[in-house]
Amino acid sequence: MVTRIEKIWNEGGTVVNGWLSIPSSITAELVAGQDYDSIVVDLQHGLIDYQTAITMMQAIKAAGGDVTVIARPPWNEPGIIMKCLDAGAWGILCPMINNPEDASAFVGACHYAPKGYRSVGPTRAMSIFGPDYITRANDHVITLAMIETVEAYENVDAIAETPGLSGLYIGPADLGQSLGYGVQLDPTSDNMMAAIERIRDAAKAAGKKVGMHCMMPDYARAMANIGFDFVTLGNDFRMLTAELNARVRSFRES
Amino acid sequence: MVTRIEKIWNEGGTVVNGWLSIPSSITAELVAGQDYDSIVVDLQHGLIDYQTAITMMQAIKAAGGDVTVIARPPWNEPGIIMKCLDAGAWGILCPMINNPEDASAFVGACHYAPKGYRSVGPTRAMSIFGPDYITRANDHVITLAMIETVEAYENVDAIAETPGLSGLYIGPADLGQSLGYGVQLDPTSDNMMAAIERIRDAAKAAGKKVGMHCMMPDYARAMANIGFDFVTLGNDFRMLTAELNARVRSFRES
Amino acid sequence: MVTRIEKIWNEGGTVVNGWLSIPSSITAELVAGQDYDSIVVDLQHGLIDYQTAITMMQAIKAAGGDVTVIARPPWNEPGIIMKCLDAGAWGILCPMINNPEDASAFVGACHYAPKGYRSVGPTRAMSIFGPDYITRANDHVITLAMIETVEAYENVDAIAETPGLSGLYIGPADLGQSLGYGVQLDPTSDNMMAAIERIRDAAKAAGKKVGMHCMMPDYARAMANIGFDFVTLGNDFRMLTAELNARVRSFRES
Amino acid sequence: MVTRIEKIWNEGGTVVNGWLSIPSSITAELVAGQDYDSIVVDLQHGLIDYQTAITMMQAIKAAGGDVTVIARPPWNEPGIIMKCLDAGAWGILCPMINNPEDASAFVGACHYAPKGYRSVGPTRAMSIFGPDYITRANDHVITLAMIETVEAYENVDAIAETPGLSGLYIGPADLGQSLGYGVQLDPTSDNMMAAIERIRDAAKAAGKKVGMHCMMPDYARAMANIGFDFVTLGNDFRMLTAELNARVRSFRES
Amino acid sequence: MVTRIEKIWNEGGTVVNGWLSIPSSITAELVAGQDYDSIVVDLQHGLIDYQTAITMMQAIKAAGGDVTVIARPPWNEPGIIMKCLDAGAWGILCPMINNPEDASAFVGACHYAPKGYRSVGPTRAMSIFGPDYITRANDHVITLAMIETVEAYENVDAIAETPGLSGLYIGPADLGQSLGYGVQLDPTSDNMMAAIERIRDAAKAAGKKVGMHCMMPDYARAMANIGFDFVTLGNDFRMLTAELNARVRSFRES
Amino acid sequence: MVTRIEKIWNEGGTVVNGWLSIPSSITAELVAGQDYDSIVVDLQHGLIDYQTAITMMQAIKAAGGDVTVIARPPWNEPGIIMKCLDAGAWGILCPMINNPEDASAFVGACHYAPKGYRSVGPTRAMSIFGPDYITRANDHVITLAMIETVEAYENVDAIAETPGLSGLYIGPADLGQSLGYGVQLDPTSDNMMAAIERIRDAAKAAGKKVGMHCMMPDYARAMANIGFDFVTLGNDFRMLTAELNARVRSFRES
Repeated sequence: MVTRIEKIWNEGGTVVNGWLSIPSSITAELVAGQDYDSIVVDLQHGLIDYQTAITMMQAIKAAGGDVTVIARPPWNEPGIIMKCLDAGAWGILCPMINNPEDASAFVGACHYAPKGYRSVGPTRAMSIFGPDYITRANDHVITLAMIETVEAYENVDAIAETPGLSGLYIGPADLGQSLGYGVQLDPTSDNMMAAIERIRDAAKAAGKKVGMHCMMPDYARAMANIGFDFVTLGNDFRMLTAELNARVRSFRES
Repeated sequence: MVTRIEKIWNEGGTVVNGWLSIPSSITAELVAGQDYDSIVVDLQHGLIDYQTAITMMQAIKAAGGDVTVIARPPWNEPGIIMKCLDAGAWGILCPMINNPEDASAFVGACHYAPKGYRSVGPTRAMSIFGPDYITRANDHVITLAMIETVEAYENVDAIAETPGLSGLYIGPADLGQSLGYGVQLDPTSDNMMAAIERIRDAAKAAGKKVGMHCMMPDYARAMANIGFDFVTLGNDFRMLTAELNARVRSFRES
Repeated sequence: MVTRIEKIWNEGGTVVNGWLSIPSSITAELVAGQDYDSIVVDLQHGLIDYQTAITMMQAIKAAGGDVTVIARPPWNEPGIIMKCLDAGAWGILCPMINNPEDASAFVGACHYAPKGYRSVGPTRAMSIFGPDYITRANDHVITLAMIETVEAYENVDAIAETPGLSGLYIGPADLGQSLGYGVQLDPTSDNMMAAIERIRDAAKAAGKKVGMHCMMPDYARAMANIGFDFVTLGNDFRMLTAELNARVRSFRES
Repeated sequence: MVTRIEKIWNEGGTVVNGWLSIPSSITAELVAGQDYDSIVVDLQHGLIDYQTAITMMQAIKAAGGDVTVIARPPWNEPGIIMKCLDAGAWGILCPMINNPEDASAFVGACHYAPKGYRSVGPTRAMSIFGPDYITRANDHVITLAMIETVEAYENVDAIAETPGLSGLYIGPADLGQSLGYGVQLDPTSDNMMAAIERIRDAAKAAGKKVGMHCMMPDYARAMANIGFDFVTLGNDFRMLTAELNARVRSFRES
Repeated sequence: MVTRIEKIWNEGGTVVNGWLSIPSSITAELVAGQDYDSIVVDLQHGLIDYQTAITMMQAIKAAGGDVTVIARPPWNEPGIIMKCLDAGAWGILCPMINNPEDASAFVGACHYAPKGYRSVGPTRAMSIFGPDYITRANDHVITLAMIETVEAYENVDAIAETPGLSGLYIGPADLGQSLGYGVQLDPTSDNMMAAIERIRDAAKAAGKKVGMHCMMPDYARAMANIGFDFVTLGNDFRMLTAELNARVRSFRES
Repeated sequence: MVTRIEKIWNEGGTVVNGWLSIPSSITAELVAGQDYDSIVVDLQHGLIDYQTAITMMQAIKAAGGDVTVIARPPWNEPGIIMKCLDAGAWGILCPMINNPEDASAFVGACHYAPKGYRSVGPTRAMSIFGPDYITRANDHVITLAMIETVEAYENVDAIAETPGLSGLYIGPADLGQSLGYGVQLDPTSDNMMAAIERIRDAAKAAGKKVGMHCMMPDYARAMANIGFDFVTLGNDFRMLTAELNARVRSFRES
């Protein structure tokens, strides 16, 4: 089985990624019913824990056959990374990868021996991906390392070269905060753009993919246009807030 | 304690009501953080059951002191109506009230003897509304009867006159379906408008309030302008869908 | 299997009953770890729905082998009564039994044909009570009818005589409200005591048991002393509140 | 959209139905991953409530595109029947339909006006079945009435003729208990077989489908061979018990 | 926004802290409805995991505007510490801080760069504390380090001096066990009192606050009198047990 | 209290262990109702998180008094190990113990000072095991280290000699994968058998127990016959799958 992400990347396209912060299989199914290529279940800043995340992964699968499920664990910790993979995530987006050691530990947790140290026991994964899951997973599981601190920025080339890593992913809020530029979403300032392009180039130089955390369609399109292979487009929590705000304000001001 | 709904109605204003269909205390708190006057927890068409509804009522209270909580039960059945009131709903919006007998049964379930037959035991309600809850509740609990079938439409005057009933509420989807005009949201056709005004007039003639289920701000404003005392403004499920649709489509078409 | 309630009643003793209003298997196990003879899972005024109630029934069983589990449904409705029995409640305490018809419908819902109309399918009950559950249940399931309205009070003799009914149970809050004496817990006024004794006598005359909803040990003891066969002793929600109140007040005043 | 059940019936085949009693989206997905044509989420004797049932319906959809989801409500009560349909059940299997009035009430609850009195608001159903759900549902929703009491047996012809009813379904445990033959699963006694064939013939005479609740493959095959259009094949709770029993006993005896 | 804890400390007062061990939003709201200044949601020894903890934090907010929410994570692990802060905890009480390195890691996890390494993404925190949360949090989030082992005791001065740490908190059960004095609650023995005062003095010398885990009002008052700035007063699980014990024993002995 | 495991081991017998992967208190009670001596709640590869695990531990206790509860944490991480013990697990089966340092950290997390560094606060454990739990636990808690990697295999003697460790447990899937023999369940190949016997002998030489993860009764019996003290016999997820497969296939092929 080639996942939708792989198919798009094989054709040189850009993956459009949805984002789940609300702990609910109902909103997960609703988001997955849109025309996203992949969806991140966010166990870090999302208000979501593992037990709920499983029902959300089921709901994403319910909404459409081929959307690729990615989980973001709370931290680079093997226990929860492996649990997410066993539960049916096809990829992991790992926060706070600051140096090559972090990256190796992360990639190792996502692969079975001899490539890594992932423990064998893919209860739901084998049930939904088929009996050959264990042999296939090592070659196809997607691993994205978040570059979001000064330390990571300084180590970006070495991180990008980590064997088995699929790509880098920029978290602009943390990155801006850590670089001293302040928290910015959909940033366009010169200093942030320079950093973004630096990270993109490091990924490309290492033959890896690069992703960007975006909020609005125009910004995501601009990122795709400058070579990003993976763009997140908003999240459920902020989108619901935005639409609520707009409607109530519109009524109150009428 | 005078609730926000009562305060607005005492001043001749229109209540702006939010609507919860997603079974989550997170979305409930998010919706309640907007500038709504009241919020309906929908146990009928919403994907919500009683146990989840309690955490949602807590979340609404968490978001702001004085938003009035209303529950819509799945049906005119005393067990669930009383459970919702005990759990802290200050009002009940009851579906499918088709005749004065339905209305009396509904109103009776919301009031303690001798006004009605509500059973005494307001576990959370007394805990949050105070030790005098039992004596105050009978005079202040809000009861809204949904008018949404041909039978209800024909009995609208008698229903409106039910002692203890606070008001009527129009469900345009069901009403249109039942009258043979088809399912319409924010309807503006002549036949629907005639029905809507007929129901409004019946409420007013009986000295009762009247509410309308609306989706968009302009329509809700128009309903307020023609005398509606209570207008719902969208629901969480549809708003999230709308915003998701807009962003993904915008990206895909760019 | 003879349940603890039956054993006590066979020896002429008084059952001491615990009461669960908090929707949690943790508090259920904690309460069941005390020296109660039976425990009511309150799906009416307790903040508890069916799915949670099952885990609470499991927790009661976890805490001790022979405590008898009783469920109070939200209303005299066969669907939820049968679900509670299937889930492992050995008895049902039914609210608002106002006349012999109510009582017959209630008792019928608790017994298999030909005694009643309970549907066969005791999924958890058979699993925990054994393969002969279906044949034994009809003779041993406990059915307690709450007498708590004027109408019930006037029909108390006829209700008590309902074949298959185990006994009557007094809800003093509702009964006082309905009789016009006001809501009283652990009531001692002459008018309430007269009503209480009238109901007790009706039960005894019909050869049935009689229970009383009590809060404090002294009151429960007094009720046992005047012939009550079953006394509830407080509930989890109120006990926790009382102890919290006492400690915080004590500190604040020190 | 033609559901898998309809497709099979249009071709004169027999539907093989799975059955869910365990309240878990994990077991639901596992069962739905087998080669069943339809699956019943049992909210009556299963240990399942509405909120859990939704996640189970999502899990069934996750497991495979075209398995038809059917819900069994706890009782013939419109509130829960409509909630199950709104949540995405394509059919309802209603217990304890004892006479034509029961059957009409049941069928009415499953259809929109003017065919019935189902309330409009298919939150998840429209989201997963498409925007034309409301118009299509009335012609395709499946309604199966359980024949499981003496009264139902005596009224079986009239029940079968109920307009809009899809078919009859035999619950042999209840039927045997009510007819005085005792509780039997996969019954083969002459008296039970006579009753089963009588019900089958009533269904056929009215141009309706007929289903049977079976446990073992051989029995289900035999029922298919004598004309049953729908056979249930075991349930998750009993199958897990059987396999556990077999393995532990085998070890203990070795 | 100045939190209630800060306000009290600015005025030189003692914070009275409640404690949640039961995994339930209902008991959380009940406890928060008492006159506590702050409340700890205990994810370590409490029977509470993250997903439940969120609903409990919502319930605390529902009960009263200004009670400060503190979370105790299971261990000094950045993933769960950051999740608790994102979910709306205003402070963290961290177990098992045994040396300055532990303390620095803990404090760093609670602050954004450049003070620490907390990841930016305060989903619920920003929603409830306002858009300036990120800039304010670094100066106001409360960090309390538990001193409860021999190692910690020996390093107490260095721990207390950790920049950004708000204070020390004594867990007498662990401390007594580790010091070889045995597990004691509300300890008054000379050796325990000497240790307690030693820790208090270390905190004061470093200009930090100091808290004590107490059970009974008199003991908490005594601790406040000898300079403790923060006293916990019992926990929900033990209080409910105590009151249950008292009532059942009183009845059984009457 | 001597647990069932200890009793069997004291008599030289083999413990038969059940295994829970499905996150449900219902399946937990069902499995525990079989004649198993102990049951593992699998928080690693099972689809189970801590909050659900508690209800499962309660359900195991509900099913029978003396079945020993063991938890498998996701990783060798003290936070979750201690939470499982506090919640009522009597033993811990720890994955991926690769060297003596891992083993010491694991054993230390399971014992109170001075033997280890477990934090004192056994909320449920003390409630169910009695007030002397803290003093008894250190001598009786069961600690099983999983040997499942090349590194562990090479260090097996040193791991086995870890003071306080109860025994070793073989995970054949991981072990085979790591040794390069491939994933095998119930392995019988020469190379796997050699490795299995090597581990068994290391345990015995150190005076420790040894356990094996088995699927089928014959294999488990064979392992018991060659000296294994603890054999797991299947898991809920696979057993349900097997039985479903068998019945559906049998029908489809008939």
